Amino acid sequence: MNSRILAVGSMALDSIETPFGKAEDALGGSVTYFSAAARFFAPVSVVAAVGKDFPAKHLKLLSGLGVDTSGVRIEDGKTFRWKGHYGFDLNSAKTLKTELGVFATFKPELDRAQRRSKTVFLANIDPDIQRAVLKQVENPSLVACDTMNYWIGGKRPSLLKLLRRVDVILCNDAEARELTGEVNLVKAARWMFAHGPKLFVVKKGEHGVICFAKNFTFLAPAFLLESVFDPTGAGDTFAGGFMGTLAKAGRLDSATVRKAVIYGSVLASYNVESFSLKRLISLKRFEIESRYRQFRKLTEF
Amino acid sequence: MNSRILAVGSMALDSIETPFGKAEDALGGSVTYFSAAARFFAPVSVVAAVGKDFPAKHLKLLSGLGVDTSGVRIEDGKTFRWKGHYGFDLNSAKTLKTELGVFATFKPELDRAQRRSKTVFLANIDPDIQRAVLKQVENPSLVACDTMNYWIGGKRPSLLKLLRRVDVILCNDAEARELTGEVNLVKAARWMFAHGPKLFVVKKGEHGVICFAKNFTFLAPAFLLESVFDPTGAGDTFAGGFMGTLAKAGRLDSATVRKAVIYGSVLASYNVESFSLKRLISLKRFEIESRYRQFRKLTEF
Repeated sequence: MNSRILAVGSMALDSIETPFGKAEDALGGSVTYFSAAARFFAPVSVVAAVGKDFPAKHLKLLSGLGVDTSGVRIEDGKTFRWKGHYGFDLNSAKTLKTELGVFATFKPELDRAQRRSKTVFLANIDPDIQRAVLKQVENPSLVACDTMNYWIGGKRPSLLKLLRRVDVILCNDAEARELTGEVNLVKAARWMFAHGPKLFVVKKGEHGVICFAKNFTFLAPAFLLESVFDPTGAGDTFAGGFMGTLAKAGRLDSATVRKAVIYGSVLASYNVESFSLKRLISLKRFEIESRYRQFRKLTEF
Repeated sequence: MNSRILAVGSMALDSIETPFGKAEDALGGSVTYFSAAARFFAPVSVVAAVGKDFPAKHLKLLSGLGVDTSGVRIEDGKTFRWKGHYGFDLNSAKTLKTELGVFATFKPELDRAQRRSKTVFLANIDPDIQRAVLKQVENPSLVACDTMNYWIGGKRPSLLKLLRRVDVILCNDAEARELTGEVNLVKAARWMFAHGPKLFVVKKGEHGVICFAKNFTFLAPAFLLESVFDPTGAGDTFAGGFMGTLAKAGRLDSATVRKAVIYGSVLASYNVESFSLKRLISLKRFEIESRYRQFRKLTEF
C-alpha cells in the first residue's frame, strides 16, 4: 500500500520568546513540524511556499531527514513570519506579529504523483485553499485537516464544505467548542460526526488528548515533562506522529488509533523540550519507543 | 486491620447556581461529600460542627448511608453557608457569599475511639485546626490533608508544620503551584517530598489527576461526561474514593494508589451529574465497578 503522506501548509520563520530564552527567524511552520515528526512512520511530501529569503539550509535539513521537499515553491517575496510570546504557563501563545509574505497568495498546484496521494494532511490554512488542494487529489483514502478560530469565525461555510470531505479533524478544545457550538466535548463529537469526520481529535496541550471515533473514545493525558522550553509546533508535531502511524498501518481501528494518539503525544513531548525543530532533528527511533513504553507505565492501572 | 477513616472538616448548606439550574440551602461541606464517597470502601467517622438550623434529616441521611455522625456537634448559632456560581465552563466556582457561622469557632475534640484512628483525612480547613486535630490522634498510620489558596497565603508557617506530619497532600494545580513556588508540577512534587508528604495528588478537574509518589507517577484523565450539572464537592468526593481505597487496602504501593485514583475519579464523575449529594446517595456499588471498567476502556492502549 502507498503510505506516503501529502502535507500541505506553511513553512515559516518564527521569532519566539519564552521565559526560558528566545529565538529569531527560526525554522517553523505547520508542515515543517508535521513532516519532521511523520517521517519516523511514513514517507512525507510537503507542499508549501517560501520566499527568496528562506535559508537554503532549512530545505536541505528537511531533505536530510528524508522529507520530500520538491513541492516547496520558492517565490518572489518574503517567507511567512510569525512572532510570538509565551508566559510561564506556556499553554497559549500571544501572537505579536504575523507577516504572511508569499503565503498570502499561496495556491498549491499538485504534480501528478502528488495527485495520486492516498493520505493527505491539510494543515491549518484558509479552508478555501484546503479544499482547492483536496480537489486535486484523485482518490484519497485518508484525509485529515486542522483549523483555527480565525477560519471558524471568518470562513465557516467553506470550512463546513471541507469537513464533508474529511475523515479526521484535529483542533484544540476551544476551537472545537467554537466550531460546534457545544461546550461539552461529547456533544461536540456528535456534531462532528454529523458533519463529515469519522475521527475527532481534541488537542488539549498539557492536558492531553481526547480522541472520539463513532464506536470508541480514547483519553490520553500529556506526557509529563520537567522542562518545557517552547510549545511552538506541538500540535503539528502531534499530528505528524498521529497521521504517520495511521498511514503506516493503513487502518483506522481502535487499537491503531490509540497507538497513533500516543505516538503523536510522544513526538509532541520531545518537540517542546527545545526551540524550533532542534529536538525533532536529533531524535532517534529508540527514544520514541522508550517514551512510548514510559507512557504506558505512567497511565496503566 | 482498623480501616475506619476519621474525616474532619465542614458540613454546610450550599446555595448553588449553574447554567443548568440552582439549589438553595442544599446539603454540602467537605466531610459530607468525602464520607458519602468513602463509605463504599471503608467505615467513616466524621467530625464537624453545625448550627441549630441544620436540618436533622441531613444527619439521618448520612447515618443511613452508614456514616458515623456521632462526632458532629450541634452548636448554638448558624450552619456554615456557601453561595457559589458556575459559568458554562464549570471548571471554577465564583464564591458569592460565605457565612462561617458555628464553623468560625470550630475546635474539634476527639473522643477516645477517634483518637485511636489509623487513617485520618483533614479536609480543607485552617491548618491550625488541622494540626490541633492531628495532635489528638495517638498513632495514625495514614494522614491526608487538603488545603486551598486562602491558607497557603495566610497561614503558610502553620501549613508547613502540618505537611511534616502528613503522608498525602491533595490539592488542585493552581494551589500546588502557589504552595511550592514551582510552575512545573514535576518540580512541585520534588518540593512536596522535601517537605513531608509521600504522595502528592494534583486534582485538575475536567483535566484529570496527576499522582506523584517518590518511586512512580500516575496520570489519569477525568472520566468523560456528557452532562455535568454541578461540580461542587468533586474534589472531596474524589478524596473519599481515593482515601477509602487506600484505607481498605492498608497499603500505599503503586498498584493500590493507581486503583485509588481511578476509584476517586469514578466517584467524582458520578457526583457532578447531579446537584448536591443526590447522585452519591442513590449510587450503587455495581455502578462504581461498571464505570471503573469503562475507565480502563477509555484509557488503555
